[in-house]
Amino acid sequence: MDDWAVIEGEPTVASVGEGAALAAVFPRLAASRERIIGPGDDAAVLAAPDGRVVITVDTMIEGPDFRRAFSSPSDVGWKLAATNLSDVAAMGARPTALVVALAVPPDTPVRVLEGIADGLRNACATLAPGCGIEGGDLARADVVTAAVTAFGDLEGREPVLRGGARPGDVVALSGRLGEAARGLALLFEHGMRAAAARAADAVDAQLRPRPPIADGVAAARAGATAMLDVSDGLVLDARRIARASSVAIDLEASAIQSILADTAGYALGDLERALEGGEDHGLLATFPPDVALPGGFRPIGRVTAGEGVLVDGAPYGGRGGWDPFRV
Amino acid sequence: MDDWAVIEGEPTVASVGEGAALAAVFPRLAASRERIIGPGDDAAVLAAPDGRVVITVDTMIEGPDFRRAFSSPSDVGWKLAATNLSDVAAMGARPTALVVALAVPPDTPVRVLEGIADGLRNACATLAPGCGIEGGDLARADVVTAAVTAFGDLEGREPVLRGGARPGDVVALSGRLGEAARGLALLFEHGMRAAAARAADAVDAQLRPRPPIADGVAAARAGATAMLDVSDGLVLDARRIARASSVAIDLEASAIQSILADTAGYALGDLERALEGGEDHGLLATFPPDVALPGGFRPIGRVTAGEGVLVDGAPYGGRGGWDPFRV
Repeated sequence: MDDWAVIEGEPTVASVGEGAALAAVFPRLAASRERIIGPGDDAAVLAAPDGRVVITVDTMIEGPDFRRAFSSPSDVGWKLAATNLSDVAAMGARPTALVVALAVPPDTPVRVLEGIADGLRNACATLAPGCGIEGGDLARADVVTAAVTAFGDLEGREPVLRGGARPGDVVALSGRLGEAARGLALLFEHGMRAAAARAADAVDAQLRPRPPIADGVAAARAGATAMLDVSDGLVLDARRIARASSVAIDLEASAIQSILADTAGYALGDLERALEGGEDHGLLATFPPDVALPGGFRPIGRVTAGEGVLVDGAPYGGRGGWDPFRV
Repeated sequence: MDDWAVIEGEPTVASVGEGAALAAVFPRLAASRERIIGPGDDAAVLAAPDGRVVITVDTMIEGPDFRRAFSSPSDVGWKLAATNLSDVAAMGARPTALVVALAVPPDTPVRVLEGIADGLRNACATLAPGCGIEGGDLARADVVTAAVTAFGDLEGREPVLRGGARPGDVVALSGRLGEAARGLALLFEHGMRAAAARAADAVDAQLRPRPPIADGVAAARAGATAMLDVSDGLVLDARRIARASSVAIDLEASAIQSILADTAGYALGDLERALEGGEDHGLLATFPPDVALPGGFRPIGRVTAGEGVLVDGAPYGGRGGWDPFRV
């Protein structure tokens, strides 16, 4: 996307300095409903009404995690927020705030920072109303590097961990499967314009994911026994619940196919991508068998005694997902 | 330092994968006294006994912020913790926890991650007992990149901001001045071995700073009206208090000289470095005139009506400190 390139004469981070660049960005960010002291001092102060605070951190780096050819600055901000909000939601918490450590090359236009800020703000407003950006740091790097720490409030509930699944529980998913991976494959194969023309939904799922944040709280209220955010691939992430809970998770291919059938551009070969594709940021949860599944959750399998992940009763052989150091 | 180089055959992040690398690191980290749910789930859960949480974030990147030739992995971990703890202390809060977003090249030895972890742990144990590491993220980057978010508890007190200084207040400093900048200058001029032989204290101040973390709470208890962490240079940071408080800060050169006189390797020409050198992470605070200065605080000036920073009554002309984008 051309949005990253310097337009001759426009202010860059180097030309205005760190302070002025941050001063341009902060007014674009909405405050958290829990703000007590916002950005501008040595630290921010955030209300933690529950007396506990949920904390998660995730990084996106130009190159492995996004490419200027596909993502606008605003897309990068959006995805940064969305992926971190999803980790908060996966604990059954309501997201309250983000802080952002951003490092950019000195010749980065201030406009690019504003774009990233707009994406962060819009994702919070859309996916987790009331959540705001409460602090940041701007440093120098050769490539755009962003680490977001996100916070959540448990509103008096216990956090939903990975280790609580019990044999007999229903395995359910809220969100999409394999779409973000399909979008990325199309972007690499056809480039931005042709990929978007061919499968706008998949490209959107990759560049501007819309994880079902509110379903995290809904799952906790409904009594979910375990939950996580499917970021690295369904099988790999399901294996994490299985391991932490000392159970097996048996996925039902036909149930997964029926989720895929609702997705534009579905093809039979997509089952493997649905099982292994990362970055969809759906919520995978287990519920007692008698619970009415809340929000967008749909059943995709069962918890059984044993270990590992099975599909239709047979152990799944593949790695099942993504490791950034093994590509 | 050779500690960064891969020894043939040893495990690297790429050879063991993200999960195993993190599994090697986490046992080396001490838990926060406020831990409810530690690392390993989608998010951590930290107690926030005060009902508010203090949050700050800071980044260190190989190249602009540290160099393998001077800093060991453990030094990098130490400095990451120390600088972030200092921002929490500058609010008058007790540091409770850190989370760390680390990105490294794939051929980084797991041993290097362990070294960074040891530095983080040791700095917390030494500078802020009870503070622990409660989460992290490991990503790929071409150079070592670390963003730390730190948390603190206000223990029922109001946070000490930059905007509360009043004419008549005493300006006081706890910590060192110009030592970290002197250390860096020596390292660049003479290299590691000769610089350490010449001025071990200054090299330590640069590589393994020991900011007076406990003095943050002590200042708040004593009634400090404003406070910040001197990270970018005394004059530049004093100007931030002056601006936020709509006052002038008049520094007394002889008082600063007397702090310098206590420092090994002091030389007359160091006054400018004391006024402008960054990275010392002392605490600069203002106190009502009748307050007995707590802990290591020593008077270095007065708050007066007016604006900006003066030295012995004359406006200070230089920029007074460090901007990472203007070097």
